[in-house]
Amino acid sequence: MIWLWLAMTMGAAALVLATFYGRQVIAASPGNALMRQLMADIREGAMTFLKREYTAVAVFVVILAALILIFLDWGRPWGAVAYVYGAALSALAGYIGMRTATAANARTAEAARVGGVAKALPLAFRGGAVMGFTVAGLGLLGLSLAYLFFVEILEDENAFQIITAIGLGASSIALFSRVGGGIFTKAADIGADLVGKIEVGIPEDDPRNPAVIADLVGDNVGDVAGMGADLFESYVGSMIAPLAFAAFAFKDLEFQDEAFFYPLMIATLGMAASIIGSFFVRPGSGSLAGALHRGTWVSMGITVLGVVIFTPIMFDGVDQVDNSWGLVIAVASGLAIGGLIGQISEWFTSDRYRIVKEVARQAQTGPATVVLSGISEGMRSAAFSVIVAAMGMAGAYWGGDLAFDHPQAGVYGIAIAAVGVLSTLGITVSVDAYGPIADNAGGIAEMAHLPPEVREATDALDALGNTTAAVAKGFAIASAAVTALALFFTFRQAVLDAGGDLVTLDILDIHVTIGLFLGGMFPFLFAALTIKAVGRAANRMIDEVRRQFREIPGLLEGKEGVRPDSARAVDISTSAALREMLIPGSLAIALPLIVGFISVRALGGLLAGSLITGFLLAIFMSNAGGAWDNAKKFIEAGAYGGKGSDAHKAAVVGDTIGDPFKDTSGPSMNIVIKLMTIVSLIFSSAFV
Amino acid sequence: MIWLWLAMTMGAAALVLATFYGRQVIAASPGNALMRQLMADIREGAMTFLKREYTAVAVFVVILAALILIFLDWGRPWGAVAYVYGAALSALAGYIGMRTATAANARTAEAARVGGVAKALPLAFRGGAVMGFTVAGLGLLGLSLAYLFFVEILEDENAFQIITAIGLGASSIALFSRVGGGIFTKAADIGADLVGKIEVGIPEDDPRNPAVIADLVGDNVGDVAGMGADLFESYVGSMIAPLAFAAFAFKDLEFQDEAFFYPLMIATLGMAASIIGSFFVRPGSGSLAGALHRGTWVSMGITVLGVVIFTPIMFDGVDQVDNSWGLVIAVASGLAIGGLIGQISEWFTSDRYRIVKEVARQAQTGPATVVLSGISEGMRSAAFSVIVAAMGMAGAYWGGDLAFDHPQAGVYGIAIAAVGVLSTLGITVSVDAYGPIADNAGGIAEMAHLPPEVREATDALDALGNTTAAVAKGFAIASAAVTALALFFTFRQAVLDAGGDLVTLDILDIHVTIGLFLGGMFPFLFAALTIKAVGRAANRMIDEVRRQFREIPGLLEGKEGVRPDSARAVDISTSAALREMLIPGSLAIALPLIVGFISVRALGGLLAGSLITGFLLAIFMSNAGGAWDNAKKFIEAGAYGGKGSDAHKAAVVGDTIGDPFKDTSGPSMNIVIKLMTIVSLIFSSAFV
Repeated sequence: MIWLWLAMTMGAAALVLATFYGRQVIAASPGNALMRQLMADIREGAMTFLKREYTAVAVFVVILAALILIFLDWGRPWGAVAYVYGAALSALAGYIGMRTATAANARTAEAARVGGVAKALPLAFRGGAVMGFTVAGLGLLGLSLAYLFFVEILEDENAFQIITAIGLGASSIALFSRVGGGIFTKAADIGADLVGKIEVGIPEDDPRNPAVIADLVGDNVGDVAGMGADLFESYVGSMIAPLAFAAFAFKDLEFQDEAFFYPLMIATLGMAASIIGSFFVRPGSGSLAGALHRGTWVSMGITVLGVVIFTPIMFDGVDQVDNSWGLVIAVASGLAIGGLIGQISEWFTSDRYRIVKEVARQAQTGPATVVLSGISEGMRSAAFSVIVAAMGMAGAYWGGDLAFDHPQAGVYGIAIAAVGVLSTLGITVSVDAYGPIADNAGGIAEMAHLPPEVREATDALDALGNTTAAVAKGFAIASAAVTALALFFTFRQAVLDAGGDLVTLDILDIHVTIGLFLGGMFPFLFAALTIKAVGRAANRMIDEVRRQFREIPGLLEGKEGVRPDSARAVDISTSAALREMLIPGSLAIALPLIVGFISVRALGGLLAGSLITGFLLAIFMSNAGGAWDNAKKFIEAGAYGGKGSDAHKAAVVGDTIGDPFKDTSGPSMNIVIKLMTIVSLIFSSAFV
Repeated sequence: MIWLWLAMTMGAAALVLATFYGRQVIAASPGNALMRQLMADIREGAMTFLKREYTAVAVFVVILAALILIFLDWGRPWGAVAYVYGAALSALAGYIGMRTATAANARTAEAARVGGVAKALPLAFRGGAVMGFTVAGLGLLGLSLAYLFFVEILEDENAFQIITAIGLGASSIALFSRVGGGIFTKAADIGADLVGKIEVGIPEDDPRNPAVIADLVGDNVGDVAGMGADLFESYVGSMIAPLAFAAFAFKDLEFQDEAFFYPLMIATLGMAASIIGSFFVRPGSGSLAGALHRGTWVSMGITVLGVVIFTPIMFDGVDQVDNSWGLVIAVASGLAIGGLIGQISEWFTSDRYRIVKEVARQAQTGPATVVLSGISEGMRSAAFSVIVAAMGMAGAYWGGDLAFDHPQAGVYGIAIAAVGVLSTLGITVSVDAYGPIADNAGGIAEMAHLPPEVREATDALDALGNTTAAVAKGFAIASAAVTALALFFTFRQAVLDAGGDLVTLDILDIHVTIGLFLGGMFPFLFAALTIKAVGRAANRMIDEVRRQFREIPGLLEGKEGVRPDSARAVDISTSAALREMLIPGSLAIALPLIVGFISVRALGGLLAGSLITGFLLAIFMSNAGGAWDNAKKFIEAGAYGGKGSDAHKAAVVGDTIGDPFKDTSGPSMNIVIKLMTIVSLIFSSAFV
């Protein structure tokens, strides 16, 4: 119980820290009148999008809440309440992150104007930290409160199934935020670039371009709000997996309570470590990357130390516990998976390494070779990441098996590994979320005609942000695969618990085989649908931008006082994104429900199949996209003829193809694989 | 037994028909001296490649034969002998097909010159038919003879395991032929195009281009020899799967003998039907496509009729047979899978349908949108094909279950479905193989400066060939997935038979889970390796073509008597292809062996994982490539500005990306998934 109170305290502390950083951001100057105007435009667009998105998703949430009420014979009405609670927290995390980011952008530009990188980095980081600690704080506090209420106060016999519904709520919002935000941002990005840079020949972020504000809005709704909801879901989901598994598998065992509190303990330690680590992010001695990485490494080190110290203490003298060091192995395996997959992402997407340089070199022979090179590198990175994940999961399983005297204990080890990956979420999101703030600051600097050195400063921050984002995506994907696997095993326990027949899930059973094929297929379908959605939305945007250049007199010539109708461009992107997100998003939830009601064994196969190809496609698409993006940046920095050369044009093609890969389809895939599993887990009693 | 003799007779008849068609081809005029010279150059290059390839692969075959001798404690030395026998037959099929194709190319061009399409189509088709009936005839006769020898004469107790080794031999050759041939042809193709068309600005198939002969050689070694070995392997593999399964699962049951002869019966009926159908391929009334399709439909109709008539006769009065109509359902399910997946391929790759036109339309906004569109359509086609395959396999399983009173009878139904898909192989290969012949004829027409209407005639044949090739690939992939699944189930039986523990293959067993992840990963790694291999080989080719243009005086200007050093270009492509095929090819065989010796359950997971993602990637890559190719051709025919427009340039980028997709990585994937399963099946006793 002590760890429950500590978890609540630390969750609250994170929220206090977020408020503290938020105040620091607000206190900074947002610059001149034009910059403030741009900031207001971006914020208005972003808020309008979020409002419309949440309104649309609310309908969906209500429907699913009703289904939970109708079909599930346990925990009425608390299951539906918990589901809505999870959805609301996730939406709140996205909302707060975005409010801060849309306040920090102009202020970062202003800081860069006044004091260069040295002043801009801390401000951008603090903006990101608001998001990081809000997401983590809401997750830890929100889940601890739910634990207190459902387990300790209500003492509901299905308390842990109810808590699982929180995860489903968070996943629903996360999926729609990622898909909707991803479509919005890429439609605006492609629309702005294709007409602006290529057809009309004006620079990036030129104020004459009607899609530029939409593009800047997109950075916020996709990379900030979408990512916030996504990571909130990952964090909460990773903690729910061991809770739910322990509830089903360790029923009435001596160590069940400790197994419940252990993930909370790891998260609490990680949160404390993240808070400490955040004070280590200071430019000064060393590189920019060094400043950011220092915070991360300090936090991870403290977390590991805490786990090594407190694990034996928690499990000391508990019956049926063989060797609590096994759990330390599980946590370490999780950190190793996250760290190594993040490192693989960096190798494949940072222009400091050979691979991106090679992709850039292939641009000399044209777009076809650069695209082929990115595709093959992306596939290779997926293969390597899977090998790492498989080894790490084997390690975590072995650790869990070592810890408890129970045939399923290894699965608990896998679940704990996912908690380990995400324990320092506070600092990793802070480091990650600063990227889009710097990106936005650059856009504002450009549009407000600030001196070129300001743009250079924000570009330096932004380039670094691309790599930290790739690494954070590696973490997110790694944790998603591990969490989904743990939830998948829990699904079996839930089916057994509900009286269903799933002692084994035999691949050689035709139901399972067919489920495997269908599940393996779904991520391909989902990727196809989301890529097409981006394409269609971008086409609408392109038409609108062309129309404005054609119909607004003096716009292209840059006549004084003539401004594009940016609000209309934002509106078009918003409508397109909301329309396009519905089918892929709903399919991800409907498919397991439909298959589950037909055959639970087929559903088991379906989940395994989608987990595997979803994981592969997520990494493939994220890393191929990241490699193309940075290959383009590498050429822009002067290689192979630099900006405007044929090689650069070829690299831009790769970058554009990578846009929906890395910012829409790829990151959504993480959520899809967990969402499908968690929806199956919750409805398992209804299927049986 | 009667069906064994009929099978041998019909196999021999097919070979006689192939000889008859071959004589007809040889009897035609090969045109003027220049055309004969070009034909000789192409043939020499192709033969040199094949000789060097087979020499390289022979080393590999000897090693694997030695492993079989050492590790397998059954059927010594016959297992190794059968393995070499299968390899030799597969190589022979490729060799004969290529000899004919390299004789039919110039003759088709000459026929087009003399009599246009009406004369060229029958000749090209006959060239293809030599290949088709050689492959099918060698397969049916070769397998029947092996049955006669090992089962009836030798009466070896492991006769069916020995026969399975024939499949492994065929697969080994097929894999290396597909990969090696695919790398050769695409390296030459990309090299010829990038330097010739784009850098130097000379037309396609211009005799000044040093890589043009290599490109024409490539059509033969990749599309003819590679495809021949591939389809030989598929055909033999599909028949071996039910034999092997019945041998393990139906041991000592009343209907075992009938279960052995049934696949031979289907193949025999299909062969007879193909022979009859081949006489229906005549241009005249109706379109070109109609002429080719008529032959296929007639053959399929006759086969179905034969199955409906003879199935009840064969199983009449046999004990433990519940309802032999179940087997008819299985065959029909197989034909439905093949037909529908072929149809899906046609929808996604033929410019007569909406999708290719839409991909072409996306070329208007540049290469990025055309590539994205092709990728998403390819993924969508993979998803649809998997749904069809899953439904069809469920139908076949149900059919098998209906037929026999045995818990595993459904698996036999799946195995029979694969035989159904490929039963009319004779005619489908004939229709498919004529494409590269027409392609080659066009190249020769161009290089021999024949009048433009000759090229138009061969182009019309070639365009049609692209679609028939896509449909044939659909058949090949569908049969591969079904065969691999049947072999996978047989693998379990083999492990059980050897005393191993594989009653269930539980996804929730951590060994199996990790195997699934690793297996799912492998096709991504294989695709990455083969794409990179093509890229590297193409780079060598590009360097060589540039060097010749630079160093051979008068070459680019087209000075009289100056000829490029084509032989050197062929040699470079050959060496590159042979070097590059080794790693991906060997990995596909080594991986299951390594994993199998560690954990048989992990191997089970590995096979299932690779089957699923391999199937998905194979269809995705083949259809995306086909869509880009025909989108380009659609634009070349005049849409969106036609040849030379920006849209055309964008479409060429898509086409180039599609080259290794559809001709190297995609088609190899079929073989990979079967090869991994069959190698596991053969070595199962050694693992246990």
